[in-house]
Amino acid sequence: MTVEKNNTTDEKLTVPVQKYKKSQKLPPEGFESTNDFFNYTFENKNLIWMGQNTNHLHDEDDINNAMIKSIKNKEYCKYPAPEGFPELQELILKDLDLEDMSVYISAGATESLHLCMHSILEEKDNVITCDPGYLIIGSFAERFAHNVKYIPIYNNDCNYKLTPKLVRENLDENTKIIVLIDPLNPLGTSYTEEEIKEFAEIAIENNIYLIHDITYKDFAREHFLVAKYAPKHTLTIFSFSKIYGMAGVRIGAVIGVEPLISSMKNVVVNDLGVNIIAQEGAIAALKSKREWIGHVKNTTFENQKIIKKMIDNVDGVFLPVYPSDANMMVIDLTGTGIKAKDMSNYLLKKDIFTREGNYTSKLYGDNYLRISFSIPTEEIKVFCDEFPKAVEALRKK
Amino acid sequence: MTVEKNNTTDEKLTVPVQKYKKSQKLPPEGFESTNDFFNYTFENKNLIWMGQNTNHLHDEDDINNAMIKSIKNKEYCKYPAPEGFPELQELILKDLDLEDMSVYISAGATESLHLCMHSILEEKDNVITCDPGYLIIGSFAERFAHNVKYIPIYNNDCNYKLTPKLVRENLDENTKIIVLIDPLNPLGTSYTEEEIKEFAEIAIENNIYLIHDITYKDFAREHFLVAKYAPKHTLTIFSFSKIYGMAGVRIGAVIGVEPLISSMKNVVVNDLGVNIIAQEGAIAALKSKREWIGHVKNTTFENQKIIKKMIDNVDGVFLPVYPSDANMMVIDLTGTGIKAKDMSNYLLKKDIFTREGNYTSKLYGDNYLRISFSIPTEEIKVFCDEFPKAVEALRKK
Repeated sequence: MTVEKNNTTDEKLTVPVQKYKKSQKLPPEGFESTNDFFNYTFENKNLIWMGQNTNHLHDEDDINNAMIKSIKNKEYCKYPAPEGFPELQELILKDLDLEDMSVYISAGATESLHLCMHSILEEKDNVITCDPGYLIIGSFAERFAHNVKYIPIYNNDCNYKLTPKLVRENLDENTKIIVLIDPLNPLGTSYTEEEIKEFAEIAIENNIYLIHDITYKDFAREHFLVAKYAPKHTLTIFSFSKIYGMAGVRIGAVIGVEPLISSMKNVVVNDLGVNIIAQEGAIAALKSKREWIGHVKNTTFENQKIIKKMIDNVDGVFLPVYPSDANMMVIDLTGTGIKAKDMSNYLLKKDIFTREGNYTSKLYGDNYLRISFSIPTEEIKVFCDEFPKAVEALRKK
Repeated sequence: MTVEKNNTTDEKLTVPVQKYKKSQKLPPEGFESTNDFFNYTFENKNLIWMGQNTNHLHDEDDINNAMIKSIKNKEYCKYPAPEGFPELQELILKDLDLEDMSVYISAGATESLHLCMHSILEEKDNVITCDPGYLIIGSFAERFAHNVKYIPIYNNDCNYKLTPKLVRENLDENTKIIVLIDPLNPLGTSYTEEEIKEFAEIAIENNIYLIHDITYKDFAREHFLVAKYAPKHTLTIFSFSKIYGMAGVRIGAVIGVEPLISSMKNVVVNDLGVNIIAQEGAIAALKSKREWIGHVKNTTFENQKIIKKMIDNVDGVFLPVYPSDANMMVIDLTGTGIKAKDMSNYLLKKDIFTREGNYTSKLYGDNYLRISFSIPTEEIKVFCDEFPKAVEALRKK
């Protein structure tokens, strides 16, 4: 036989049909691919991480120690229980003060979101979400839904969030899922108990599902669960990446009534469960939470105040939502004429990693920079020094 | 509003339509669910692990140390590069002696298999695989294909493997993917270079894809890659769970030409990459491979011989494939009248974890027990003591 060459370009490549369009975001200047860029951010020890809502404030050892113990015991040569350690499942329910619910542990909350979309949606179904928002959810929904409606919420009339009123106005007979990111990435808006109850009513009245992504809940001044009011219609998405500071171990969960979680098992991706070391770390994180959460939450909130004070003194920029109930916020740049991408590129050269709007918005991507601030306060001060200089350097006169 | 109760049964539950049938395997006697059973196997420190093809023979420290270092440096508060660390990608290509190929790192080889099926298959497409085989692959294919053909191979005529001849006989105009598990789970059969070349020819001639799952390749006496002969038509599935002994960290990869891997990115599940600690461990595993592979491979092979000797002295049982080119083999029980499930339940009570056939076969599930033997030799000896007693205890007179 003739050995096929893989580096020739003269033959027709046998590439499968592209089923889904994925928006291809360009990597920052000077990087060949997004993967190369991420690898750079990971390798660069001087970088100030304000670009991914990660949490760099943990200074206790419980999580580390639990993971190291697991490694030393070589637990990792075995497979884990495929739906998660029962102890971890119970601790998550306890954290949420929920009972009689099932928990499925996934490789990051991202995977849980995928499972929800794949298990619930049929071809005719529509989904409601918002812009700005966490676009990966929309992208998952687009793979399985007829239509995904991104409701524009970047304005004061709706307080920069997807309100019950907006949802009611946009429901149609094929709406099957409403996605509620709460607090909202990137704006940090959250909901009152009355609003949460109204969302629950909407779900029950229309017999549809609410995906309640509570990734940032522990940064909020107060927080309420839709699952308390519409348990059968709610899938709650839980993450260890933010308050727990464990983004890199990729662990999360989805919580729902047993029949909903059970139906999800038909579309599981990781049939053999989630990283054992991550699960041991997550157990330790929940068990030790009371000891560290005050420090993490307060430092994050104080950092936000420092940024606010700086922003108030820069012409043409403002904070659409303040205070944010998450560990991130949006800085609107429209008054300066600066495109967000130019700002993030500029700051990256100063070793400050932030995110231009198009990472969380198809409609307002140029308008704002997203910054996260669960990092040491001395790094916040560096940002507060550099940001006004960046505005002056880039401002369109 | 009225708060909805989640524990009542009198209302119609709003469960989504079950899109896919998943075969529900019963957990062993005495366990409420498969998850409970797996948790038991994990927690029971006395258990002899012959049930999941895991590898308990690593006694060097390189992998441990790399993972512990990553934890101590708190790398895990950051996100990893979403497609994998470039260093890890390069080491995998080097291990396979492949060039000009792309590598996507996934949360276990399982996730890679899912990505292949989701990205390639359209509704009209058919898939060819074999029974016995690794059923999770078939279950993924069923979600996206028109039909999945499980070719029966549990017989001497085809040497207990999916041969090129069988594939040619079963091809139809809609066949899009052939799944080649090599060495085959559960039988340990593998292929000559000539056979591998013929598979490559079949793929090229018919312009279809070959998924070459090489999870167990390093246990084989010799092994050949379809990707060497039909690179554009092959997706190679790579696992760290077996020879590397890292099942519990859930890391694997898929290797293919750039357009194929690129197309896969449209259906990714874990948009935020794979556990950082696992990736650091995998890098160390590949770098230190030369130091430990001899010990791991030889011990595994010697264990196999010990088992063979024992089996030869038990009436009514035989090894369909010997030697196996994997770290597992099949013991045929039909001559004893014992159902495989009864045997695995019996052995579990003796703290020996094995797998009845229905874990890897829809057709021959009762006929055989699958055992893996990359475990310490003293544990193999316990198995060799207990197995003949089990046969005598359970044998149908």
